[in-house]
Amino acid sequence: MPQPKHISKLPIPSEATLDADLRRYFAICREKLGLLPNVLAALSFKPARLRNFISTYNEIMLGEDSRLSKLEREMIAVVVSSCNRCYYCLVAHGQAVRELSGDPELGELLVMNYRVAELSKRHRAMLDYAWKLTATPAEVGEADRAALRKAGFNDSDIFDLGEIIGLFNLSNRMAMTLDMMPNRDYHAMHRETRVRPRRAAARTRTR
Amino acid sequence: MPQPKHISKLPIPSEATLDADLRRYFAICREKLGLLPNVLAALSFKPARLRNFISTYNEIMLGEDSRLSKLEREMIAVVVSSCNRCYYCLVAHGQAVRELSGDPELGELLVMNYRVAELSKRHRAMLDYAWKLTATPAEVGEADRAALRKAGFNDSDIFDLGEIIGLFNLSNRMAMTLDMMPNRDYHAMHRETRVRPRRAAARTRTR
Amino acid sequence: MPQPKHISKLPIPSEATLDADLRRYFAICREKLGLLPNVLAALSFKPARLRNFISTYNEIMLGEDSRLSKLEREMIAVVVSSCNRCYYCLVAHGQAVRELSGDPELGELLVMNYRVAELSKRHRAMLDYAWKLTATPAEVGEADRAALRKAGFNDSDIFDLGEIIGLFNLSNRMAMTLDMMPNRDYHAMHRETRVRPRRAAARTRTR
Amino acid sequence: MPQPKHISKLPIPSEATLDADLRRYFAICREKLGLLPNVLAALSFKPARLRNFISTYNEIMLGEDSRLSKLEREMIAVVVSSCNRCYYCLVAHGQAVRELSGDPELGELLVMNYRVAELSKRHRAMLDYAWKLTATPAEVGEADRAALRKAGFNDSDIFDLGEIIGLFNLSNRMAMTLDMMPNRDYHAMHRETRVRPRRAAARTRTR
Amino acid sequence: MPQPKHISKLPIPSEATLDADLRRYFAICREKLGLLPNVLAALSFKPARLRNFISTYNEIMLGEDSRLSKLEREMIAVVVSSCNRCYYCLVAHGQAVRELSGDPELGELLVMNYRVAELSKRHRAMLDYAWKLTATPAEVGEADRAALRKAGFNDSDIFDLGEIIGLFNLSNRMAMTLDMMPNRDYHAMHRETRVRPRRAAARTRTR
Amino acid sequence: MPQPKHISKLPIPSEATLDADLRRYFAICREKLGLLPNVLAALSFKPARLRNFISTYNEIMLGEDSRLSKLEREMIAVVVSSCNRCYYCLVAHGQAVRELSGDPELGELLVMNYRVAELSKRHRAMLDYAWKLTATPAEVGEADRAALRKAGFNDSDIFDLGEIIGLFNLSNRMAMTLDMMPNRDYHAMHRETRVRPRRAAARTRTR
Repeated sequence: MPQPKHISKLPIPSEATLDADLRRYFAICREKLGLLPNVLAALSFKPARLRNFISTYNEIMLGEDSRLSKLEREMIAVVVSSCNRCYYCLVAHGQAVRELSGDPELGELLVMNYRVAELSKRHRAMLDYAWKLTATPAEVGEADRAALRKAGFNDSDIFDLGEIIGLFNLSNRMAMTLDMMPNRDYHAMHRETRVRPRRAAARTRTR
Repeated sequence: MPQPKHISKLPIPSEATLDADLRRYFAICREKLGLLPNVLAALSFKPARLRNFISTYNEIMLGEDSRLSKLEREMIAVVVSSCNRCYYCLVAHGQAVRELSGDPELGELLVMNYRVAELSKRHRAMLDYAWKLTATPAEVGEADRAALRKAGFNDSDIFDLGEIIGLFNLSNRMAMTLDMMPNRDYHAMHRETRVRPRRAAARTRTR
Repeated sequence: MPQPKHISKLPIPSEATLDADLRRYFAICREKLGLLPNVLAALSFKPARLRNFISTYNEIMLGEDSRLSKLEREMIAVVVSSCNRCYYCLVAHGQAVRELSGDPELGELLVMNYRVAELSKRHRAMLDYAWKLTATPAEVGEADRAALRKAGFNDSDIFDLGEIIGLFNLSNRMAMTLDMMPNRDYHAMHRETRVRPRRAAARTRTR
Repeated sequence: MPQPKHISKLPIPSEATLDADLRRYFAICREKLGLLPNVLAALSFKPARLRNFISTYNEIMLGEDSRLSKLEREMIAVVVSSCNRCYYCLVAHGQAVRELSGDPELGELLVMNYRVAELSKRHRAMLDYAWKLTATPAEVGEADRAALRKAGFNDSDIFDLGEIIGLFNLSNRMAMTLDMMPNRDYHAMHRETRVRPRRAAARTRTR
Repeated sequence: MPQPKHISKLPIPSEATLDADLRRYFAICREKLGLLPNVLAALSFKPARLRNFISTYNEIMLGEDSRLSKLEREMIAVVVSSCNRCYYCLVAHGQAVRELSGDPELGELLVMNYRVAELSKRHRAMLDYAWKLTATPAEVGEADRAALRKAGFNDSDIFDLGEIIGLFNLSNRMAMTLDMMPNRDYHAMHRETRVRPRRAAARTRTR
Repeated sequence: MPQPKHISKLPIPSEATLDADLRRYFAICREKLGLLPNVLAALSFKPARLRNFISTYNEIMLGEDSRLSKLEREMIAVVVSSCNRCYYCLVAHGQAVRELSGDPELGELLVMNYRVAELSKRHRAMLDYAWKLTATPAEVGEADRAALRKAGFNDSDIFDLGEIIGLFNLSNRMAMTLDMMPNRDYHAMHRETRVRPRRAAARTRTR
């Protein structure tokens, strides 16, 4: 599918000029995902930054040292980005929620207003925290940690929540600074319901 | 100086149990800074996260591939943290502004309300952007990039601004999730005016 | 496609019990649209209200006494609903923008953050007004009417803008009061780009 | 009493040019109310719109198919308009509250800050909902419907509340788009206390 | 006219127990104003506070060492109180605007939304400053002083504006802390238009 | 220590031209405090105002007719000024909190974000009220007075809280109108911890 009119409002170096490790990483992405996420091209303007982003992102969103399921991490990514109204991240991670949950409606609910989704108590507490820490961080305190613990989150989980919410508060702002545009392929992907019964993936903790 | 009653509301492993690379890094910090910043202890709960934080932080705040002076980066850190009212980062980076500028008043101005500081047009534009991208990211657009360019910032600078502002929007939220408390030593450091004439460091671009 | 778990949190009478005029209208909808929009079922709880809604909606969104194109009216509907984060209207009218524009990306941009869309001056002024009148109505005044006139809108257009923006500020709140859920069919509809060159429909006034 | 300097910033057709049904309706208004509410003149710019407005308004505010008293409907109209700071609706419906309640103080309390009025639990719940659905519609959910039910409102009432609150969120925005000015007669009407004991009308459900 | 059900939620000492100077001052008020403003009774709970309030209030609102007309000072009082939605001050000073201007419509406009009033540039600048300094004091700066100067305000005027706006930001909060209720007499006073042509008093600087 | 570049953006008369009572008062300040607070110089532009300020300030902040300790009054002053981001008052009263508490950390906590300070229930309730009455006065009501009473505050205390919070909402706005700059001496004062065990002064009611 053709790319959007721009990927970033700042320059993007020709891929051929990048160091071998990055070219190899880009090739792996294309093979595994079927596309190179535009964020990687946009950040290649400063390769040191790109390397740190890849390392941090993969640890937080894909790492095994977390009890949060990958779908839960993507759900948080979407709700933070909904609060900040970040187009890039809503498109890219909305697609991920649709794919991982098999529930296109869940993706739209989290993009548009997570409060009207029918969520487990666990997920409602998780997403309430994501919204509050994003919108009014100065008001977060012991009562919020207590609410997370009551919903079943332990020390490790709370640490991870802070990481994920923090990461997208960073990424949203980088996307806005660059006016980053997502790959157009995302829009049509995973629009059909897959899992039955509906929303099962979102309701169950996968680990 | 004694530590605050807690450093983090989540567990902190004994330093002796950390891998050798982290123990070595902590030793270097103590030698160079005279203290181990509490953020490093707090994040050692998840060593993989700590390594990524160190790498990202050092690249963005101390790296040579940026035309922004180290004082300017710290000024941005303080203004983002002022907008979010992050106690940890205001204490730690307010100290850094006092130290790098030799101007304790500048540190206080940026902590309390950067709009009443007498700033160069460059610095006012830079800090206005930091505030807006932090407080109302959904409203950032081409006009904001144009204002930065008019104040002398180029592509590389705009990329760096996005990085720094993003990083502290992440760090502030991690600090709030952990209720991270800064080293008490910071409070009394660099409270005396050093540079004359006053505020010179802040007014001049250092590169 | 199966319906969502509920259409409204208030009772919905059996369609068979409705008066003949409403049953006939529902039949026409099904024939022309391929589905009965859930809003009609939800409002049939009070038939007098439903009749007024149908009459008002058709006049404002479909009526010939307006120089605004049908796509423009739908664009406004989506931006008002984005500001208010109304799930029902974003799903139903996001679909309409995708269909009328042939540009699925435009639909997503208006749902998520219209400010990052590349819009004509006319459409930017139109949507800026929709956002401001929705978010901060107390601040609207002569300067806003002047900005609309400068962008080419005349008396009739300004009247129509007020009507459309007002209508969705009503509908959004009715949808939230009823927790109205949209037909699930909308999600997958019109996800493929149709018009070339891209976004042409949105850029051109159709009358 | 003389009219304000303008009724609407958009054109108003000469009444003589309107269709017979509208001229007759205007005559009835003058006879029953002693004046023609300026909103009717302002909306006659587009007669189709005016007819829909009359039909919708009369159904919602005066219709018999509602358990809410006419005073309660006017109280809601004033509180929505207070939240949005709509001059036209505050003047016109503040007068209606004074007239229907016989309590000029109640009218002023609802215009200025309904939270300082001494209200029954029923009315406080009703007006809290009106404020929240107006100010932060995205946050309305099941807990709000539960609070209304606890205060005695049933399905039919909740539907009506959504209608009334929605209608004034529409009307306020139309009034602001047109800079609509109310009849000056309203200002001095019903300024004297009538009912004894005070505020009785507001405290009692009239049906 | 009978008093409201309470004047203050904190105790009010019997007037007979007050010191002679305060009893004398109350008698003068009754003679000159026809009533004792409830704020004086409410503050008599702490006589030292009452004496300071009287002295400060009279200097700022009635003092001769100001180029602002008494009507202008009351207009500012109403707009600050409108921003803060202070019932007591809106009733008492709304009445004062009606009396001093002879224009009951102006009083209502300032209570409800000063932005829709037709004001001289001087008065619009004055009230814009009152609103901004009340609502978002942290954002006030040199540009705001420059706007005031451009509208004809000099050093002395700007000082006075700060005083008046500050005073009502204090009084509004004291009224809310005490749940202070205004004398019911205010409601019906000065509801008839007196001055012709309309709004002349507000448009002209009286000194 | 040298003064900041300006004390006020409005003129300040030569001290020698002031009346004898004010010159005497200034001399006493210098003797007792070691400096003349810049607010006194700034307000001497209008001596009548200065006299009322001195009288009101001394009654509210230093008067014996209050059960609130002087430290508590200063804590409130700082939190109001933190909400409003008033540079002058944060510097001057932050210093006072450091001095009276012997706890420099407490001063910084209240300047930056009182919610992360470890406070007694009494002090948390007191500062929550200060924040709410400052930020959203229209929402203050009976529930807030009840919360204060539950935390041990009586009628006299509630009156005093309203006074102090009101006074700084006035002073903050006067400081912003004048762009008032604090004495630079404050910055380095009382930066060393004095009281052991830590924060004892803040935790204990002193009367």
